[in-house]
Formats: sequence, structure tokens, C-alpha cells
Amino acid sequence: MTSSSHSSSSSSATHPLDEALQLTASSSATGQYEGQTHPGYWNMVGPFGGITAATLLQAILQHPDRLGDPLSLTVNYAGALTAGAFTVQATPVRTNRSTQHWTLSILQAGADGAQMVTTTATAVTAVRRETWSVGDVPMPQVPPPAEQKAIVAPLGAVEWLNRYEMRPIAGFIPRTWDGSGDHSLTQLWMRDTPSRPLDFVALSALADVFFPRVWLRRARQVPAGTVSITVYFHATAEQLQATGTGFLLGQARGQEFRNGFFDQTVQLWNEAGTMLATSHQIVYYKE
Amino acid sequence: MTSSSHSSSSSSATHPLDEALQLTASSSATGQYEGQTHPGYWNMVGPFGGITAATLLQAILQHPDRLGDPLSLTVNYAGALTAGAFTVQATPVRTNRSTQHWTLSILQAGADGAQMVTTTATAVTAVRRETWSVGDVPMPQVPPPAEQKAIVAPLGAVEWLNRYEMRPIAGFIPRTWDGSGDHSLTQLWMRDTPSRPLDFVALSALADVFFPRVWLRRARQVPAGTVSITVYFHATAEQLQATGTGFLLGQARGQEFRNGFFDQTVQLWNEAGTMLATSHQIVYYKE
Repeated sequence: MTSSSHSSSSSSATHPLDEALQLTASSSATGQYEGQTHPGYWNMVGPFGGITAATLLQAILQHPDRLGDPLSLTVNYAGALTAGAFTVQATPVRTNRSTQHWTLSILQAGADGAQMVTTTATAVTAVRRETWSVGDVPMPQVPPPAEQKAIVAPLGAVEWLNRYEMRPIAGFIPRTWDGSGDHSLTQLWMRDTPSRPLDFVALSALADVFFPRVWLRRARQVPAGTVSITVYFHATAEQLQATGTGFLLGQARGQEFRNGFFDQTVQLWNEAGTMLATSHQIVYYKE
Repeated sequence: MTSSSHSSSSSSATHPLDEALQLTASSSATGQYEGQTHPGYWNMVGPFGGITAATLLQAILQHPDRLGDPLSLTVNYAGALTAGAFTVQATPVRTNRSTQHWTLSILQAGADGAQMVTTTATAVTAVRRETWSVGDVPMPQVPPPAEQKAIVAPLGAVEWLNRYEMRPIAGFIPRTWDGSGDHSLTQLWMRDTPSRPLDFVALSALADVFFPRVWLRRARQVPAGTVSITVYFHATAEQLQATGTGFLLGQARGQEFRNGFFDQTVQLWNEAGTMLATSHQIVYYKE
């Protein structure tokens, strides 16, 4: 683990996120990494989508030819990973003066032993320079994290929920599934737990913590799963370091629910009100 | 040209969009297509980004193994195409029961004759079924297209602007570059010109017609170019057919402008108020 701004001085144990993102470079092919799914980030029928996105970003960050910091990442969930070993392939297909374009995939042996693509991705890394800058979506005025109660994942909930501290402000998961929903907007304070200094990989996973918008909009719990997610990184490594172990304000909203798929827009600010990332995803839902 | 819902009965001449999207299947490799840049969609130093997105989608639509209709498309502009021939490679890397995952690239011979990747992309196609559906971002109440004046591209403007009829409602391109900008929201009615029945390829190009948000936000015309765009398709082929040659209401807004890159969110409705697509992009800007 050579990358990330993670300082391990605060704890002698490895953080679960860093355990999950441990990738071993293959000696036979540049950009090929071997990893293992982590039980701590298990979802219903595969890993939490955010940890898969973070794993792909981790491969880029470890790649010896990387130029710059993450700018955009798109991950397509082609098939669920099964528990166990997987291979990440990260290829910088074009390197310009200040941007670099990546194609990635995750491969895993199928039932017949043949390698199957479970995940495809593209990414852009970039050398950022200071320019005129402005935020055009100010952070909503909400109560500070200390005033909001952290939710406790119910018994039998999926395991990855225990890796995040979530302090909902508005639009959290319905208490009753009575079909009464009338909006799809969620706001919550969130961070890794145990706490861990923020970096690009943690940020990419945090962009995917929101429960399916269709559950909120319908107050009905139907099967749902992300098909494709895109994260745009606005923060510099220094801004992530300055955020440290503080909370992020996450805001998620659905725009259109139609014929089995809805989209979700996401904004992530730190407590100081700096927009760190924006994200979008398209999600399958049943019925 | 086997795909698209384009009816050519209204005109004997081929529409410029269909000319631009003409791809010839290679006899040597499935999913490999030869195309030519089209002068009618030329931008400053390469083709209009929307036509490149549409070209990649066209390759998917022509592919003999395609399952379903477009659901999501992400295009990364790694390098400008030069005028002339190019090759599209479209590969369905995983086909599930109702979704199919694609990786794509555009290749062009560089100065030294070697093939260079100019563009990478991923896409998902899906078989859609009717389900519970709802729009959570209603179309803004705006005056109808007939009440808005169409803009005329100024002499010397980039050529692709002449391929679109645009009737701005709010937030159009500043008349004076005096640094007075205070928002990044644009609303306009738009369609292909000459008029052409809407289909998936036309829709994907229309998602990219907005001038750079940084020009509006700053009232300053700095160099800018899309790095990566994602389009989520919400409409069925039937809804596109029903939209016909009508206008789309396009709405675009920047969220964060920081250190050389800003993001843009886009919504596209037809005149009946149906959300046809949502889109996002991350855009380079100078200074």
C-alpha cells in the first residue's frame, strides 16, 4: 500500500477500508492487481458498490505510470462479484500533458473456471492547477452533525452499513412501507467508522452510500441495484487532508423513475462547506 | 444503416446527422466500424462532442449482438479527432438476462501512422419493461418554443451550431464579456435542423449542445472542452417516436467550478413534459 494520504499513526490496526483495498501488483503484467473481497463491506449478493468503485480507483493510484489525481470515475456493475479473489486490470490508454485516460475492468473466475468480467470502468486523472473557482450549489443550511442522532443498522442488516457512521437530517429510510412516499431527497452527515482521514478512495465509496431512491419515493422496498455510477472529484488532495476525519454532508435525489431504472444525483460537501465531489448513478429497480 | 427510428419519407436527401453517423462494418472483426468525420459537425479543433457520443451509440445500435435499448453512455474525450477516417470498436463484454455492458473506443492514425485512442466509452443497453414510474423533476414552466426567437449563429461561428435550432429562454450566451456573470443556468428549446424525427442517437448528441457553463458564470470566454460526458436514457423508442420532430426543453447548470474543471448537470424534456434523458459532464477550462 504505497498510495493514499492515510496516516496510520492514529491506530496500530489497519482500517477495514485499507484492508478491503489491499491490491497486490502482478509480476507478469503492469496494471494488473490481485485483490480479495472483504466481508466487512458485503452487501446482499456481492460487495457494496462503493467499495468496488474505491478498489478500481486504488488500482489507478497504485499504478506506476499514473499522472495527477482523480478527476472522474465511471463504474459499470456488469455482474455481482462472488466472495474471494479477483483481478483488477487498469490501463492508461492515453496520457496527455495534464490529463490521463484509463480503462479498467474487474475479472473473476466463473463457475466453469473461465475469467468473467464483473465490472468495467473508465477514469480520468488530471494535474490540477489553481484557477478562478466558484461553487454554484452552496451547501444547504442544516444542523451540525453533533445535533443529529447516528443510526444503528438493524440486526440482520447488510454488513457494509456498519462501516459508515450516518447521521440523517432529512429523507432517511422509511419506517413503514406503506406506499406513502412523495419525494426522493435525502440529506445526511456521514463518515467512515472507525474514523479514518479522508482520501480519494474513501470519497469514491462515500458517493455510493445512499439507499435506493425508489424506496424513499414509494415508501416501498423493492429489489434495486446500481447499474452505473459516475463520480466527479472537485477536491484536491490537500482539501481532503484538511477534511480529515470530519463528517461529509451527503445529498441525494432521484430525477426520473421509469420502466425499471431511476437516476440519482449526489453532492458531497465537507463540514466547512467545500464541495468535494458530485456523483450520479442509474439504478435498476423491480416492478 | 439498419438502426434508428428515422423515417426518410419526409425528405429524399439524407439528413446531415445520418450522413455523419454512417458506419461501415469491418469484414475482419465483429464490432469494428469505419467512419469519417463530417464537416457539418465540426467544432473548433475536432468534431462536436455530441456527434462523437452519437457515433459510439450508433456502433452499438448497428452491432449484431445488441440486447435492448440504450440505458447509459459515458464518453471520455481523450484526444481530438482529426478530419478524416476513424475506427470504432464496440464490444459487448457481458450480456445478462436484461442488460448488456459495452466497452468502446475510437481509434485514429496519429502523425506517425500508429493507431491512437482518441475516445473511450462504456455503455449499458437494457430491455425495459413497464413498471411503476414517476418524474421527480417536473419540466419548468416556460414559454412555448413558438414564442421564443431562434438564435442565428454569428459569422465565423463553429459549423456544428448550424445543425441545431436553438430557441433560448434563459441564461443564453452573454452578449458582453465583462465578468458580470452570477449564475450558470441555461434553458432553451432545441432540435435538429433540418428537422429530423428524434431517436437515441439524436438524443445523445442533443445532451451536449450547451455552451460551456464557465462562459455564463463568469461572462468571460475562456478556452473550455468536455473531458467526460454521461447520458442516462429514460425514454423508450416509442416515446422518442412520439416526440417526432418536436422541440426538446434543455436545461443545463454548473455545480462546482474548481481548479480548471467544472461539472454540468442536464435535463432534457419533450414538449409534452416527458423527461427523455438526464446527462452530466466534466469540462476543462483555462485560467
